Amino acid sequence: MFKKGSLLILSGPSGAGKSTLIQTVLEKEENVYFSISTTTRPKRPGEVEGKDYYFVSKEEFEKDIEEGMFLEWANVHGNYYGTSLRPVLKALDEGKLVLFDIDVQGFESIKRSDLAPLATSVFVTTPSMSELEHRLQMRGTDTPETIAKRLQNAIEEMAYMKEYDFILINSELSRSKEQILAVAKAARLKRDPKEVEEFVGYWKTH
Amino acid sequence: MFKKGSLLILSGPSGAGKSTLIQTVLEKEENVYFSISTTTRPKRPGEVEGKDYYFVSKEEFEKDIEEGMFLEWANVHGNYYGTSLRPVLKALDEGKLVLFDIDVQGFESIKRSDLAPLATSVFVTTPSMSELEHRLQMRGTDTPETIAKRLQNAIEEMAYMKEYDFILINSELSRSKEQILAVAKAARLKRDPKEVEEFVGYWKTH
Repeated sequence: MFKKGSLLILSGPSGAGKSTLIQTVLEKEENVYFSISTTTRPKRPGEVEGKDYYFVSKEEFEKDIEEGMFLEWANVHGNYYGTSLRPVLKALDEGKLVLFDIDVQGFESIKRSDLAPLATSVFVTTPSMSELEHRLQMRGTDTPETIAKRLQNAIEEMAYMKEYDFILINSELSRSKEQILAVAKAARLKRDPKEVEEFVGYWKTH
Repeated sequence: MFKKGSLLILSGPSGAGKSTLIQTVLEKEENVYFSISTTTRPKRPGEVEGKDYYFVSKEEFEKDIEEGMFLEWANVHGNYYGTSLRPVLKALDEGKLVLFDIDVQGFESIKRSDLAPLATSVFVTTPSMSELEHRLQMRGTDTPETIAKRLQNAIEEMAYMKEYDFILINSELSRSKEQILAVAKAARLKRDPKEVEEFVGYWKTH
């Protein structure tokens, strides 16, 4: 009836818990594909090609930009980051729910793309900035300078919160997990307008 | 944090199973209010005031229209039908999820109203028209003429399917129930833009 999958976009400050919620969907839902970003920044120790990022050269990235092979991309401090279109389209054709962990700019790009009608978006954040700071400190992976920068970014990202379909305040993890699973199940009921039109034609004659 | 409730709108052909799905949400979810329509058509045997409809006189209805007291209304074959704004606003202020079983025109009116940013919409239908016909026949409440009219209405309504956020093809009831409960849980995460703005202000300073 409907073959095409749909998109579920998560955005929000780093440290708010997006990765954990994405992990929850990957564990509990079947037929899900997590969209991995492509980047030109050097691989850090412990990072795995095809798991954390697809690592490519600047030349390869720029060639793909020219050929329209990115769903969205940005240049951050001289490094490119982006979402390659091909694996997303493949997963959609396989009927998968495609998960994205992208920033507000990436989301804005998807909203302007042909895939917009298939997308459900969620903004994930903490109950307060001090709670975000606390979580970043507890994580223990960032220097005080990096944390300060992340908080500054978070303030800027929060301005885009109202652009999202749904808002998830991640205060109690078990509740947040239930909520993201509900949103994921709902997101599957978002349908390709062309398929809807075909279905209506079928429906009237069967 | 967020006090205001949100709206969940169900539309789709009569006989597709909207009432059963609404019943499921009312049973399984807390803090839900089912919006009851107001009408000027005569009460039928077995219908209960405040359960099936609010029954009012033509004069009362027209006075409320003039005073802007309807979220949406229509005149169908000389009878008025509409959704009174007051109980909806009260339920929203109480943080409730407000459920609507309305036709496509009613949905279009809500989309043009101030409450649009709070609304999540689902179109519920059968896998085919013959299946809808079969269900209407099984229900045994309609004459062949009424069934023919309902099918004609259904064809017209199907044209609006693509305007809805989510599409639920009610083929297997247990699966449809799971789906509507997921959509209901997600719909609660739709937030009032004014409250979002206030929250962002709070967030940055706490």
